[in-house]
Amino acid sequence: MGVAAILAHMTDLVTFGETMLRLSPPDHERLETTATLELRAAGAESNVAIAAQRLGADAVWTSKLPDSPLGRRVATELRSHGLETAVAWSDEGRQGTYYLEHGAAPRGTNVVYDRSDAAVTTTRPEDLSLDSVRDAAAFHTSGITPALSDTLESTVADVLETAQAAGTTTTFDVNYRGKLWSPESARATLTDLFSAVDVLVTAERDARDVLAREGSAEEIARGLADDHGFETVVVTRGDAGALALHDDAVHECPAVETETVDPIGTGDAFVGAFLARRIAGDDVPTALEYGTATAALKRTIPGDAAVVTREEVESVVDADAREISR
Amino acid sequence: MGVAAILAHMTDLVTFGETMLRLSPPDHERLETTATLELRAAGAESNVAIAAQRLGADAVWTSKLPDSPLGRRVATELRSHGLETAVAWSDEGRQGTYYLEHGAAPRGTNVVYDRSDAAVTTTRPEDLSLDSVRDAAAFHTSGITPALSDTLESTVADVLETAQAAGTTTTFDVNYRGKLWSPESARATLTDLFSAVDVLVTAERDARDVLAREGSAEEIARGLADDHGFETVVVTRGDAGALALHDDAVHECPAVETETVDPIGTGDAFVGAFLARRIAGDDVPTALEYGTATAALKRTIPGDAAVVTREEVESVVDADAREISR
Amino acid sequence: MGVAAILAHMTDLVTFGETMLRLSPPDHERLETTATLELRAAGAESNVAIAAQRLGADAVWTSKLPDSPLGRRVATELRSHGLETAVAWSDEGRQGTYYLEHGAAPRGTNVVYDRSDAAVTTTRPEDLSLDSVRDAAAFHTSGITPALSDTLESTVADVLETAQAAGTTTTFDVNYRGKLWSPESARATLTDLFSAVDVLVTAERDARDVLAREGSAEEIARGLADDHGFETVVVTRGDAGALALHDDAVHECPAVETETVDPIGTGDAFVGAFLARRIAGDDVPTALEYGTATAALKRTIPGDAAVVTREEVESVVDADAREISR
Amino acid sequence: MGVAAILAHMTDLVTFGETMLRLSPPDHERLETTATLELRAAGAESNVAIAAQRLGADAVWTSKLPDSPLGRRVATELRSHGLETAVAWSDEGRQGTYYLEHGAAPRGTNVVYDRSDAAVTTTRPEDLSLDSVRDAAAFHTSGITPALSDTLESTVADVLETAQAAGTTTTFDVNYRGKLWSPESARATLTDLFSAVDVLVTAERDARDVLAREGSAEEIARGLADDHGFETVVVTRGDAGALALHDDAVHECPAVETETVDPIGTGDAFVGAFLARRIAGDDVPTALEYGTATAALKRTIPGDAAVVTREEVESVVDADAREISR
Amino acid sequence: MGVAAILAHMTDLVTFGETMLRLSPPDHERLETTATLELRAAGAESNVAIAAQRLGADAVWTSKLPDSPLGRRVATELRSHGLETAVAWSDEGRQGTYYLEHGAAPRGTNVVYDRSDAAVTTTRPEDLSLDSVRDAAAFHTSGITPALSDTLESTVADVLETAQAAGTTTTFDVNYRGKLWSPESARATLTDLFSAVDVLVTAERDARDVLAREGSAEEIARGLADDHGFETVVVTRGDAGALALHDDAVHECPAVETETVDPIGTGDAFVGAFLARRIAGDDVPTALEYGTATAALKRTIPGDAAVVTREEVESVVDADAREISR
Amino acid sequence: MGVAAILAHMTDLVTFGETMLRLSPPDHERLETTATLELRAAGAESNVAIAAQRLGADAVWTSKLPDSPLGRRVATELRSHGLETAVAWSDEGRQGTYYLEHGAAPRGTNVVYDRSDAAVTTTRPEDLSLDSVRDAAAFHTSGITPALSDTLESTVADVLETAQAAGTTTTFDVNYRGKLWSPESARATLTDLFSAVDVLVTAERDARDVLAREGSAEEIARGLADDHGFETVVVTRGDAGALALHDDAVHECPAVETETVDPIGTGDAFVGAFLARRIAGDDVPTALEYGTATAALKRTIPGDAAVVTREEVESVVDADAREISR
Repeated sequence: MGVAAILAHMTDLVTFGETMLRLSPPDHERLETTATLELRAAGAESNVAIAAQRLGADAVWTSKLPDSPLGRRVATELRSHGLETAVAWSDEGRQGTYYLEHGAAPRGTNVVYDRSDAAVTTTRPEDLSLDSVRDAAAFHTSGITPALSDTLESTVADVLETAQAAGTTTTFDVNYRGKLWSPESARATLTDLFSAVDVLVTAERDARDVLAREGSAEEIARGLADDHGFETVVVTRGDAGALALHDDAVHECPAVETETVDPIGTGDAFVGAFLARRIAGDDVPTALEYGTATAALKRTIPGDAAVVTREEVESVVDADAREISR
Repeated sequence: MGVAAILAHMTDLVTFGETMLRLSPPDHERLETTATLELRAAGAESNVAIAAQRLGADAVWTSKLPDSPLGRRVATELRSHGLETAVAWSDEGRQGTYYLEHGAAPRGTNVVYDRSDAAVTTTRPEDLSLDSVRDAAAFHTSGITPALSDTLESTVADVLETAQAAGTTTTFDVNYRGKLWSPESARATLTDLFSAVDVLVTAERDARDVLAREGSAEEIARGLADDHGFETVVVTRGDAGALALHDDAVHECPAVETETVDPIGTGDAFVGAFLARRIAGDDVPTALEYGTATAALKRTIPGDAAVVTREEVESVVDADAREISR
Repeated sequence: MGVAAILAHMTDLVTFGETMLRLSPPDHERLETTATLELRAAGAESNVAIAAQRLGADAVWTSKLPDSPLGRRVATELRSHGLETAVAWSDEGRQGTYYLEHGAAPRGTNVVYDRSDAAVTTTRPEDLSLDSVRDAAAFHTSGITPALSDTLESTVADVLETAQAAGTTTTFDVNYRGKLWSPESARATLTDLFSAVDVLVTAERDARDVLAREGSAEEIARGLADDHGFETVVVTRGDAGALALHDDAVHECPAVETETVDPIGTGDAFVGAFLARRIAGDDVPTALEYGTATAALKRTIPGDAAVVTREEVESVVDADAREISR
Repeated sequence: MGVAAILAHMTDLVTFGETMLRLSPPDHERLETTATLELRAAGAESNVAIAAQRLGADAVWTSKLPDSPLGRRVATELRSHGLETAVAWSDEGRQGTYYLEHGAAPRGTNVVYDRSDAAVTTTRPEDLSLDSVRDAAAFHTSGITPALSDTLESTVADVLETAQAAGTTTTFDVNYRGKLWSPESARATLTDLFSAVDVLVTAERDARDVLAREGSAEEIARGLADDHGFETVVVTRGDAGALALHDDAVHECPAVETETVDPIGTGDAFVGAFLARRIAGDDVPTALEYGTATAALKRTIPGDAAVVTREEVESVVDADAREISR
Repeated sequence: MGVAAILAHMTDLVTFGETMLRLSPPDHERLETTATLELRAAGAESNVAIAAQRLGADAVWTSKLPDSPLGRRVATELRSHGLETAVAWSDEGRQGTYYLEHGAAPRGTNVVYDRSDAAVTTTRPEDLSLDSVRDAAAFHTSGITPALSDTLESTVADVLETAQAAGTTTTFDVNYRGKLWSPESARATLTDLFSAVDVLVTAERDARDVLAREGSAEEIARGLADDHGFETVVVTRGDAGALALHDDAVHECPAVETETVDPIGTGDAFVGAFLARRIAGDDVPTALEYGTATAALKRTIPGDAAVVTREEVESVVDADAREISR
Repeated sequence: MGVAAILAHMTDLVTFGETMLRLSPPDHERLETTATLELRAAGAESNVAIAAQRLGADAVWTSKLPDSPLGRRVATELRSHGLETAVAWSDEGRQGTYYLEHGAAPRGTNVVYDRSDAAVTTTRPEDLSLDSVRDAAAFHTSGITPALSDTLESTVADVLETAQAAGTTTTFDVNYRGKLWSPESARATLTDLFSAVDVLVTAERDARDVLAREGSAEEIARGLADDHGFETVVVTRGDAGALALHDDAVHECPAVETETVDPIGTGDAFVGAFLARRIAGDDVPTALEYGTATAALKRTIPGDAAVVTREEVESVVDADAREISR
């Protein structure tokens, strides 16, 4: 992703995946007894696009939505963050939703998916803005997308290949969801896709449990790069920060300590900021710093989206946030 | 439904149908821009059971729900009204939902159904509390239920026959929903079911548009009774009130004037109150008065359910409600 | 209440009575199912003081409250309107409350009182700011206060006599509450008090049902004045406006048409504005206009209190309110 | 409580006590300034019944409520959890309430009781469902109930004796409330009741301060069992967990670490789960584990009630809750 | 605005003006006592752009905003509707706000402007996206903009001339605001601008009170067209609908009857829809129908923005909206 | 401030400064995306007056407000705490506001001031209640006030001199705000004012960064007292508590540990309580204890104001707050 290459692109980043409506009781109320729900748009790949846009990238989210108030609700909220939405509006299929209960130890945060038969599950490559994909600096999707339907598994493979063939850097987050498929199915499908992926992001836990990798985070990164020829491998490690392997060099970045308000979307915020800064020409260590800082800020914000400014992220990178600014 | 017959029954009324979660923006907000949704349980047949229970009947709602916080949310709310819930908890299928936008002229109130693949659509007779059905004074369902799946069409037919065979009065509300099926499909399916129905309730509009009836409301009632052998036919006429044909006599009851807060569930409130009073031994004109009064009160109450007391209904029947009671 | 007399007083108006916490479900929700309640301070006599203060009078509310967060909640809200609160803080007795459901025809607005054993019911004259009463231009209470306890019946009699003896104009609103006592008890108690009352306000309905008056509103006013020697009698007639008898002249004032948001406190707003303008030296017809205009505005405002400015009232009196002012 | 005995019972658990309406400002707002209150049903013995029902017991709550929207509000919410409510509806007496301010150190959580003259205080044995009590595996009440009135002190004694005579296991939680009575009064009354109690639950602090016990928790348990002949004594110790003495054996169970959202009802959740599992035939150590796990979950849930499922409790017992389940 | 001309444009409509944050108490609460405010973006010219975009036009809003969370809040919300925002981000000047109290007769809806020293007041032509203006089919602003500062008066004149010189149709809504300037000042300034305006929209009241026109609505339109050479003059007449003069022909369109939820933005919705349909090539009578239908729908929607779809508007035009669609 | 002196005063404390409307998103929502704002009155000097009033002082807040619903909103809320408000109502100038986002590490709490051209900025001494200032035991303002305008700088100097000349103790909190002025400007202005100040309160950080003091907190206090002749110097040190120099003795008081709900207003709560107790005749160490306890309680309460009672503060001073009081 050199500067010259970027200048040739009309768009910085295109992402593709399902965006759901997220329905959550206020505070720590339970779904079983709550009288109200908060409503937000939420999806791994649009979360990435939002974070990237807010960190300075020109981002496009392309996908399929039902032509209904629910589908429009998704597009309305995504556009508010400044993304371009390239949507195939469908008369078939549902708007996927998920219900979220915020936990408090020992009660875990609980996600109830209601995404079966979503309109997005029938997306074929021609439903997407392939011109944007071809013209972009980078294209991103995650392991959630191929888990949603056989059609999507095939579409993801096609679009990754289309992107790579056009010179667009392809980036992929493993993002394993145990409520969608088994580790074995995920491993089989994902490793098939990896040949068309340039930049892989994976949680260390997913690398172990799904990709069956062993050893240290660095050994995991090196093993994945060796086996699949990735240009860059990023291993995210929760409180232990993130590690990236690029040009045979390993870069580590600690996590920023946070008071967590809403943990959902942390990884997506990391990826979006990392990609935005890489596309803008920053080196890997710098991009990691932006990624971890954006991820930390995300955890302080309700909702899936990283509602941040580049200045705020840089202030965390510069580690000088004061308690009250007035 | 003579008094003697009633004394032999352990339950007054069993209803069967889908109960959804209803998600509605507050006030007149639009789905496309709202940040919050109000959450309530809602379904024609459970609405009927709630109204009947509140008017003095012992009511049971039997159906299938997903074994999830969403399904439990439905049962939790229904039980709060004092019903017994006889639920087949399912590991398969969704919890149906519907999104409701309150209108204001010229913007119509809008319902967006999201009920495909609901757990209830696979309900077979053995999933239901057939013992309750057999022991009840009356069994009720509506035209929505057979519209939801082929399985349900067959189940409704079976359960109506089971009920009738056991001496349980069968009651049925046409309840046509244009978003579920065409008038032609509805007519074909419903008229097949009518041989097992004792008491038919139909909106005058549905009788014309779906059942292809013509003439006055009385002519509609007489025609339906003649063709299908109903013991009782009730034709609801919106602002024009309701008309019932029973024992060859026609009884009319005007509607009660209302300031409408939430129109959803009006017809179900009417049916529930009408059935409760009939089961309690009241004559048809009295039951119509309770039905129209309960329907009017329902329109003043947010949500599908008629959250009323028998005393309140009787005070409307007695037409002496004061503006402020203190 | 001539100008000279007023100049001699340190306070314009002192009112005495119970102020409750008012708990009401939002919108048209029912108490039986609501998850939240709106909380406000509410009481006939403090409502009068608030309206009077906002129309230009210096008002004091004197009463007894429990020394608890609930009692302090009442005082906090009353003070916010600019009143002085002269409170006997009590370690005994409850904070009275009332629960309010907003109705919509045919469902009446419903008040559930929970005011038994309130701290105020043990109020003796020495608990009150009698110096303020003696120094005020006018002292006001209503028929609710003696209905609350025998102690209060005696205290009201004492304080009215104390006021009158000190040259303070005594004003009294019949304010019959059927949930507190029977018409017969009310009539017996109130007519005993009337000898110490200078200005009587009564709803026409109360005059008929409680005071057993007959004939036209004017005949009612003249009969009351003749029998009890009132300086002024005001008969409020709902949509028909108000009528006052003063110096043997009858003055009528039509009601202002309103879209009602919250009807509670309408009469108190009328009385407060009427008294404020009388105390300020306006003649009876002018005070009636302020009273009816303030009452109309009150009906557009949630809560018991008339949150208005004198300019707004005058703009209604001048009948030139525009739909949107910008 | 052997398995054989249980099979003979129609109900698992009957509880008796006052259930109040709980009114609390949102978040950390203060009563003195809040504009809204959250409304929930709350009472030690119904809390116990809810927890027991959710852990698998068939529970009945029997008590007296005022026949008003407020009383119905209580029954409506209790029924939502699946309990049976056996209520004596009264035309006399108030609905008890309590106001709750959530604290944050150094500001303590503050409870303002407003429960004087509640309808429940006049409850006589014949108001209750004594048949249910006699047919149940266990009957439970707490030290709050006899503290509320002399009538209730006598009623509690009668019902405990009735239960014990019928072979129903009697269980009792000391539950000392300093705002209701002195330690001396409590000790005198409670020790009189203990002869009819089979299973005693007490906080270690109450055992010391009210029951005047000394020594270690085990010594307290042994002393109480020796003096009063309890079949089982459970001593709850807050962060230190719980200890039970049964069949001369002492069983200890540590507390589960929690992030506390709402501490009210913790002890009741413990008791309800403990009893449900004992009634189901589990041994004491297992019941203690369910009790401490349910208590920990309760602390993460707003309101008095333990809105949990048996699966959730077992997942805490199995100590494998993950941060986010998706 | 012929079809050929439109095809040559990259953008359909550019609007310029101030967009404020609108702060309004919920329901009918008063500013003086409310504890919460609803927050929305609001401004005549962005309202027009939103309505136009939703009716099918590609709209751009260009203006100046402060580089602060408040300015970003405005852009965020505008973008959600699908507009492009071309913003000059300023380090100087405030974010304008307005406070809105919803009225109910006789209490008028009240607007409190707090827009002095807004960043927008220093906008110079070069701050705006003049390229978009030149490339657009139409450019729109209103009489509010030149009222805000001398700089803006000059900027509006410049931009209208720039647009007209580039062949962009210029459209202008008189939009008189008595809280910003006197009728005399407005008349002097606006008539100076009219030479660069092609399409004038004016409320009949403004034409009389500000532009000093007399006679019937048609006479007003003809007089304005004659004096200023407008291509089109539209006179809006509230409940009486709208009238347009174009190509010497007069077209009238009645208003659609509405239940008003929020009247703010009605005129802007009319203008946006009228322009969108004109730009799309519809004739004036058709555009008037879309305008009046969109205006009617706007009145049913909280906030300044017409959150509608083209299908909804067409359903009102086709006059077949049903009460509930399900 | 001896007891004798106090008895001669009609008011205990007069404070002067700007009070703003504070607008904050609920929970941790961001301004950029929130749909609602919480509204409260907030200003350093009125915060001090509120805390002082609640700790037993008779406090007056004197200032200028715009004669609008916004200005009245401020006065309404301040009066609710029992203060007297002596307000110059102005037809010119804005109501200052500030927008507050609650942070969570690493996201700082963020304040966006919108206070330019506030009505208060033109306040001249004659706008204030100078009689109250002269008759009070103490007069208080802070370094924010002279930072707001040149007029205010001059007015503050005049009023401090007027107070001191009348024998009123003058108290001053440095309260540096980096968003209002530079440290250098602040130092120059403030040190000019110090000759008329008797009691100085400063954060240790402000003493270093603004007043250019070095050394330990004690050295700072002694240096300030030596250079400016203060009767008392209080240095607040956040988590490290507070230190006071008085009569050449140094008193230290540790901070009370808190769970922080809202940190804004902590320092003002400290000052208000400290002054109230000093005015009441308590010695400096006692006043420091009340100050630190009130500051700690403030941090647990949403909003700028210390909504506490003297009993609560004393219970913290006595260090015996229990977790739940019931």
